[in-house]
Amino acid sequence: MAETRKLKAGIIGATGYTGIELVRLLVGHPDVEIALLTSRSYAGQPFSKVFPSFSGIVDLELSGNDHIHSRVEDIDVLFLALPHGLSAKMLQEISYRSRVVIDLGADFRLKNKLDYEVWYDLQHPFPKALKEAVYGLPERHREQIKKAKLIANPGCYATASELALLPLASAGLLQGPIVDAKSGVSGAGRSVNLDTLYNEVNENLKAYKVAGHRHTPEIEQELSEAAGQPIKITFTPHLIPMQRGILVTAYCPVPDGHNLDSVMALYKDFYEKEPFVRVLDIESAQTRFVRGSNYCDIALKEDTRTGRLIVTSALDNLIKGAAGQAIQNMNLACNLDERAGLAPVPQFL
Amino acid sequence: MAETRKLKAGIIGATGYTGIELVRLLVGHPDVEIALLTSRSYAGQPFSKVFPSFSGIVDLELSGNDHIHSRVEDIDVLFLALPHGLSAKMLQEISYRSRVVIDLGADFRLKNKLDYEVWYDLQHPFPKALKEAVYGLPERHREQIKKAKLIANPGCYATASELALLPLASAGLLQGPIVDAKSGVSGAGRSVNLDTLYNEVNENLKAYKVAGHRHTPEIEQELSEAAGQPIKITFTPHLIPMQRGILVTAYCPVPDGHNLDSVMALYKDFYEKEPFVRVLDIESAQTRFVRGSNYCDIALKEDTRTGRLIVTSALDNLIKGAAGQAIQNMNLACNLDERAGLAPVPQFL
Amino acid sequence: MAETRKLKAGIIGATGYTGIELVRLLVGHPDVEIALLTSRSYAGQPFSKVFPSFSGIVDLELSGNDHIHSRVEDIDVLFLALPHGLSAKMLQEISYRSRVVIDLGADFRLKNKLDYEVWYDLQHPFPKALKEAVYGLPERHREQIKKAKLIANPGCYATASELALLPLASAGLLQGPIVDAKSGVSGAGRSVNLDTLYNEVNENLKAYKVAGHRHTPEIEQELSEAAGQPIKITFTPHLIPMQRGILVTAYCPVPDGHNLDSVMALYKDFYEKEPFVRVLDIESAQTRFVRGSNYCDIALKEDTRTGRLIVTSALDNLIKGAAGQAIQNMNLACNLDERAGLAPVPQFL
Amino acid sequence: MAETRKLKAGIIGATGYTGIELVRLLVGHPDVEIALLTSRSYAGQPFSKVFPSFSGIVDLELSGNDHIHSRVEDIDVLFLALPHGLSAKMLQEISYRSRVVIDLGADFRLKNKLDYEVWYDLQHPFPKALKEAVYGLPERHREQIKKAKLIANPGCYATASELALLPLASAGLLQGPIVDAKSGVSGAGRSVNLDTLYNEVNENLKAYKVAGHRHTPEIEQELSEAAGQPIKITFTPHLIPMQRGILVTAYCPVPDGHNLDSVMALYKDFYEKEPFVRVLDIESAQTRFVRGSNYCDIALKEDTRTGRLIVTSALDNLIKGAAGQAIQNMNLACNLDERAGLAPVPQFL
Repeated sequence: MAETRKLKAGIIGATGYTGIELVRLLVGHPDVEIALLTSRSYAGQPFSKVFPSFSGIVDLELSGNDHIHSRVEDIDVLFLALPHGLSAKMLQEISYRSRVVIDLGADFRLKNKLDYEVWYDLQHPFPKALKEAVYGLPERHREQIKKAKLIANPGCYATASELALLPLASAGLLQGPIVDAKSGVSGAGRSVNLDTLYNEVNENLKAYKVAGHRHTPEIEQELSEAAGQPIKITFTPHLIPMQRGILVTAYCPVPDGHNLDSVMALYKDFYEKEPFVRVLDIESAQTRFVRGSNYCDIALKEDTRTGRLIVTSALDNLIKGAAGQAIQNMNLACNLDERAGLAPVPQFL
Repeated sequence: MAETRKLKAGIIGATGYTGIELVRLLVGHPDVEIALLTSRSYAGQPFSKVFPSFSGIVDLELSGNDHIHSRVEDIDVLFLALPHGLSAKMLQEISYRSRVVIDLGADFRLKNKLDYEVWYDLQHPFPKALKEAVYGLPERHREQIKKAKLIANPGCYATASELALLPLASAGLLQGPIVDAKSGVSGAGRSVNLDTLYNEVNENLKAYKVAGHRHTPEIEQELSEAAGQPIKITFTPHLIPMQRGILVTAYCPVPDGHNLDSVMALYKDFYEKEPFVRVLDIESAQTRFVRGSNYCDIALKEDTRTGRLIVTSALDNLIKGAAGQAIQNMNLACNLDERAGLAPVPQFL
Repeated sequence: MAETRKLKAGIIGATGYTGIELVRLLVGHPDVEIALLTSRSYAGQPFSKVFPSFSGIVDLELSGNDHIHSRVEDIDVLFLALPHGLSAKMLQEISYRSRVVIDLGADFRLKNKLDYEVWYDLQHPFPKALKEAVYGLPERHREQIKKAKLIANPGCYATASELALLPLASAGLLQGPIVDAKSGVSGAGRSVNLDTLYNEVNENLKAYKVAGHRHTPEIEQELSEAAGQPIKITFTPHLIPMQRGILVTAYCPVPDGHNLDSVMALYKDFYEKEPFVRVLDIESAQTRFVRGSNYCDIALKEDTRTGRLIVTSALDNLIKGAAGQAIQNMNLACNLDERAGLAPVPQFL
Repeated sequence: MAETRKLKAGIIGATGYTGIELVRLLVGHPDVEIALLTSRSYAGQPFSKVFPSFSGIVDLELSGNDHIHSRVEDIDVLFLALPHGLSAKMLQEISYRSRVVIDLGADFRLKNKLDYEVWYDLQHPFPKALKEAVYGLPERHREQIKKAKLIANPGCYATASELALLPLASAGLLQGPIVDAKSGVSGAGRSVNLDTLYNEVNENLKAYKVAGHRHTPEIEQELSEAAGQPIKITFTPHLIPMQRGILVTAYCPVPDGHNLDSVMALYKDFYEKEPFVRVLDIESAQTRFVRGSNYCDIALKEDTRTGRLIVTSALDNLIKGAAGQAIQNMNLACNLDERAGLAPVPQFL
């Protein structure tokens, strides 16, 4: 970017947890300025009035979502942080090919329109755009992302699950894994809901959407494509009384002819040049080791008694699982340093 | 018990979390009085000085662990809440056959001395007593418990895992399950340890003792015995930032010729008369639904896409996973109402 | 009560946190049976369907709030767990004098109708009943409660604050105290609200309703009446990321001629015969020492450098601050053992 | 600093929570490189082995604390993150005048050696250095800090309390305040201690060191000096179940002739040019509005009924209360941009 003008970024839906995190990270990005923030609920108020933590930092007034076409006219990068169904509708209202659009929702993640309609129980509002959309997992689709105009930012669970299993899948060594996933509550978003009240969540453990979570087909799509054959997974998410962080514990057979060392070598090799994936020699990935950062950490263990591999992966669901990965994608699509604006150091505490 | 004298109970190691919980529950037991509480660290102090919550309720002075033989002379029921290795040693010092002894530690859970020595890395201090010990899971060994003098109270993870899978195992329908377990921090005990400091645990998720946790052989022993053939499990515990509660998520193939309905019927039938196991028609067991109670709740789901059964079970690790189950065992061994002293209603919040 | 029939209890608004806690405690009450539970949101469903923790324990179907007059016909004790304004309206629809009614809301706490109208910004819906209502703090009004038909159960903050300061006020030794209060989130109730979402509350500290909280006039009313002269307080509540528990830290001048010892003696004397107030010789009251119990603990310290007394009091806001105190009041008004159904032992953890 | 060489920073005691946070912030500092990290417990291990969150970021090996003189030879800025008493001893072993030394402990905060000896119950190990030390609160002592070689970084509670009251004190308008302070657990440090175990802290509220906390004389020193007359405070810290954050609620009389507006104007004026203090028009400061940042937020309310002012201030105890303020002080003393390396945006969640 050098000394040229900064890119103008806009965020549609800036007052959800993902939106706030996008704002926070973009403030620190050297090549971008925030030019548009929208919100249905808070339109007309300064962003810093809604979130006093931004006082003196982001005092920009929130716009509404109407007349969106003209609002985004001079926006170079547009982030959509909307519920599924709404992103695709919004996209129809703007000429998305004249800028980079990154959708943090689910509308463009599944290549197969029928999968979308089955899992989301909704007719796809804008199927035409599906084939132009690139799935924004840089570790798999970096070259396509660089050329993309429409990027489907992966789901938080999906990112953690795919990164945990891609090295095996890509080597043709993955058999029907079980993915037991645990997430902090921020993944559930900021909409007002009995189920995410403090007293309903704190000091509680539960599984939810057992065998029916919408990130399942997304994970299968990416693993299958990497494997060159269909991979089916059992996926069980759990809600954990904490704010940020996802831990995935994935189980699959140790591939024939392999052991922990050889699989570990495979993983280290696969992620060797990745700026944001670390394969660590520790017993388990831990969410606190990645908190506040764009890293996804991976650890491996073998259960020699049963011949199973146990892969743990951890990420911050709001960063590598959402806003951070979106910025990584923006950096790639806009020809910026892939790491720009992505604070390097996790917060231990 | 009628109007006869109350049983005299003693607790060796009364100042750990399990010990405190035993005291709390025994205070409310109609047929028992607390006659002896010991502690290495706090000997000589009133129990209520160490734990002011018991002020005016249990002001009994804590004894030391020396001269234990004479201290326990008039004790009818003795609870050992000691680290493994120490219970077995303690037992040698007293004539345990003259009273009911319930060991909340691990020393008498494994029938096979070699298993103990492999998994606990310790020569068994008192192997002679092993064959007299009864494994204190009432749902499987009720009749033996009624006649027992030495009861090995099951581990917390073990209780949740066994209850989740026993109906299948007993019907010969269980194949190599994966048990992904999540526990609150009180399971780690009250010993002072960097790993259980608030700031190391809160807002963090990790697996630990992956493929190596000591409850593994205990679970395998009980499931194998029930199945009449060896069952091997993959067991992965996780530490969750909450105080009380274990949730087990177990995965295994849907047995041939079965579906969710038939397995559900099997479970309901198996636990029909159990006072403390509930098979619920909900998506997932939740720890808050059992908190503060002696219940273990179980829920079932089927992943028809992959042919797997997902069984969740939840219990309060300090109650059904420790002190409550110990009292249930005491009730059985002392010919009391099995439910006596076990508060019936979980605390929703 | 002896062996006569059990009292029939009804709870209007049984699905809020206070309602659930009332149900839980009443299940264990030897002299009461639950005969009526109502809910606007869940009418027609079994209580245990809404709260699976009660499965097999309270399967009673929830009624609506309409035709309330006939629903309560055979109810001996009626608990109103409704938002302010609604209790008073509800009371007009039933002939409350034919049973004991305990209102857990705010409508009958303030003797002075004008205070109600100023602080609650609402015309009092049923002022006629005000003079018949007894303020249900047993430590101050036990004899009146015994004869009451309509009992105004005190607020949670109010109970903790009044018990912390009543001994001084009653002795005429209290001067303009500052009450800095901290509460867990369950005090905010179960209504769905952005402010009590997990992610808005966890890992956060704030004061709220500074110098304007509605428990202020209630505390002043009771302290002034005890003192025989007007007492004004500064009251600041804070929201704390935890579920249950209130801690009050109250500041006032050490009375002339007094020191810590003499004030301590005054407190111990004042509460000597109280079953649910403990004056402890510890540095600070702690909420975990009273959790799950009906106790209010009090501790005293003196700042000799500045001549101030620091009184801390702790209670479980859902028990002594709400449902437990309501049952204590019911016991008194119905001539039962004052302690009946109030589990004696706090849960340390 | 321009393109000249980076300053070499060293941290003595790098494996406590303050040390980790210093490392994290310094990694992002444009003008500094980390050249020395020491630890008694982990000497010889790479920093990233002890804290895997720093894998690939800070792999530097931890040194011991012996032979410290030669270890620090080429260090330009030295941070001491040691328990009180040890910093002063360490300082005697090095020639501190040849570099900037910032002590994050308590040894050089109190100007009066006697105060130190009374409150810390310890003979001061190095009183000679006291008069050279500058108290590192930039909002009060910026000019002196710029010239200092030895900087006493203020305590976390002290920073929050002083910033809350300095505008009043400096204007001669402060009368005997009460400071009720609440802190997350990270303030208690990383040493292994029963009192900071997860289960002892979570879901609990307590005051501690009531009328005896060691930050008291520090706050009084600064307020008195600003006021030009002795100010005595009542200071009560409370432990809150959260990790980061301090909220101070301070009470004092509304000064004669003043009201909320005029006091607010005074505060805004006082902090107008401060980069890290924000006076906000909100009801209460909240710790989440400053989390992860170097800000201290302040809010004001008036209790017109009692004539009292209620000032709330919030900061992140590990940043503005420790590591961040230390870096701010380093920036000043080393003639760097005062904001360098201090991430601008608080983490809302």
